[in-house]
Amino acid sequence: MNNDSSLTPLREYGEFGLIDAMRRILGEPSDAELLTGIADDAAAYRIDERRAHVLTTDMLVEGVHFDRLVMPMEYLGSKAIAVNVSDVAAMNAEPRYATIALGAPENIFVEQIKEFYRGVRKASDLYGVTVVGGDTTAAARLTISVTVAGEADIARLVHRRGAVPGDLLCATGDLGAACAGLRILLEQRRELQEKGADFAPDIEPYRYVIGRQLVPRARLDVVRDWAARGVAPNALIDLSDGLGSDVRHICRASACGAELLLDALPIAPETYAAAEALGEDAAVFALFGGEDYELLFAASPEQVARMDSETCHVIGRCTADGDITARTPDGRILPLEQSGYEHFGGKNAS
Amino acid sequence: MNNDSSLTPLREYGEFGLIDAMRRILGEPSDAELLTGIADDAAAYRIDERRAHVLTTDMLVEGVHFDRLVMPMEYLGSKAIAVNVSDVAAMNAEPRYATIALGAPENIFVEQIKEFYRGVRKASDLYGVTVVGGDTTAAARLTISVTVAGEADIARLVHRRGAVPGDLLCATGDLGAACAGLRILLEQRRELQEKGADFAPDIEPYRYVIGRQLVPRARLDVVRDWAARGVAPNALIDLSDGLGSDVRHICRASACGAELLLDALPIAPETYAAAEALGEDAAVFALFGGEDYELLFAASPEQVARMDSETCHVIGRCTADGDITARTPDGRILPLEQSGYEHFGGKNAS
Repeated sequence: MNNDSSLTPLREYGEFGLIDAMRRILGEPSDAELLTGIADDAAAYRIDERRAHVLTTDMLVEGVHFDRLVMPMEYLGSKAIAVNVSDVAAMNAEPRYATIALGAPENIFVEQIKEFYRGVRKASDLYGVTVVGGDTTAAARLTISVTVAGEADIARLVHRRGAVPGDLLCATGDLGAACAGLRILLEQRRELQEKGADFAPDIEPYRYVIGRQLVPRARLDVVRDWAARGVAPNALIDLSDGLGSDVRHICRASACGAELLLDALPIAPETYAAAEALGEDAAVFALFGGEDYELLFAASPEQVARMDSETCHVIGRCTADGDITARTPDGRILPLEQSGYEHFGGKNAS
Repeated sequence: MNNDSSLTPLREYGEFGLIDAMRRILGEPSDAELLTGIADDAAAYRIDERRAHVLTTDMLVEGVHFDRLVMPMEYLGSKAIAVNVSDVAAMNAEPRYATIALGAPENIFVEQIKEFYRGVRKASDLYGVTVVGGDTTAAARLTISVTVAGEADIARLVHRRGAVPGDLLCATGDLGAACAGLRILLEQRRELQEKGADFAPDIEPYRYVIGRQLVPRARLDVVRDWAARGVAPNALIDLSDGLGSDVRHICRASACGAELLLDALPIAPETYAAAEALGEDAAVFALFGGEDYELLFAASPEQVARMDSETCHVIGRCTADGDITARTPDGRILPLEQSGYEHFGGKNAS
């Protein structure tokens, strides 16, 4: 079958091609209560006149999304919850219930799985999520699939669609740190494997960026702050794939373009330091690194004025044409290549 | 780390031990709307005064739950939906929405994944489920995690708890066929590998049992029939692990015992024929085979009288003591060993 030239290897297709094919096969949903289907961070469906439920799922696979050598199990448990809560937050909704399917390889110990669930517990308590069910099975590699169900007033749901030209593009926090942290961890693993017991990694200068990689925080605090202020953006997504890819999702869904301002990207001093140590460009981490789990949103200048300036960093604006560009500090306009973290293509930081 | 004797290998713990440990770590849920948590086929939570939502998740892993050599991808897609719909049916609820997380290995082709989604579509249409989201990622082995959200009137929810001594134990259809089908498929795969192209498997006599293995059917039709008749059982579970294991779940949750009548087990003629060809006992398949995805329920004789006799096969009764026994046709009472399909222990058909 491997020699059958009529078959298409998955890597030639890519994640987006696969999602399109899947949507064609599944057809247009006919459910009258469905507000948003496969096109967004989470699905949303009406449960009564006022309220909607949202539903989202994410799968984390050992060797693809994490490396057990550099990822303590407790952090992994926290992260599995946080990345799903982040998708719920990206609908401007509140998470409520979670299920966890765990595929456990033979070379894992009960104590490690308990560590994992301690992390799940911590994150669940932090975000107000109740774990209500799951499934445990054997697997070749550690595989975690979490589903979170959440709730929102229908009037407050925010989608990827909804941005209009003239909207400001904003991020809720600093970008690129999670990628810098991953790169530092991988570098240290490499040195550890080379030098063995002689290697004493200097974690201290990289504590912040490593923390951003290992323990991402879903910005539910921002969603709650918006609710308290009675304000909401026009379009919203969480920054999991990377700014370059995620801004494209908003533009595609909203039928608009975007201009990012490179010197406005919020980048932490620790990220600059880590990038320098790695001989890399911190702006590339911020644009294409992914996994920051901040929120990216489009909002009118009036809406932005009503938000907390601490968690609303203007990084660009929505434009009427379909182009997605980045303006350099010296005024040049560069096309922003479709890039970011696509799991079938690997890292395309270019 | 493999030499650290303070660590406990997972296989020494078993799935049930792991679930207990997980529940201790996660703690008692404090959510006021939660009606049923980790203890049942699906979780249930109140969404208004009258209605509850249910949520369930199941993970299928290549090499553990299925073998791609004997499992066409379309059937796998159907089965992934059906086994979750079966869990929703086991709460006496209606399925509504599904998410699908798919971990795809490198040696899979786009055409196969499309086949998979065609199966998903067929089963979704059959059961009235809308696929609203998902996640696609790379993985070492094909891994599928489906979550289904469903709905029920709170007054009609049925749990594993609720059986009382004197209740009749009933199954909605014939048992053991799925296990017989799996054994036939594995036998034919073995012969194919031995004999190569010379081997022409005789599928015809085994069509029924192979179909029961490859395309399980969730008994939502029975749940809907009960609703139409205004009747419901006292306790309910789906037969995924095997009768011996699943009757134990009902007894444990309901604090009662059970006596099964071996000569009352509904076993199809095709299952007897397959068992004979394999040199096995069809009753062992029925008791411990698992994956039949029929419903097992406890109901009073009055409730049973109001059900359709076509889908209500009395196979035993609930008793006041905690023992779980099987009565042989010649009147002997045997203890029913804790057995069935436990994924960490493999098949314990004894």
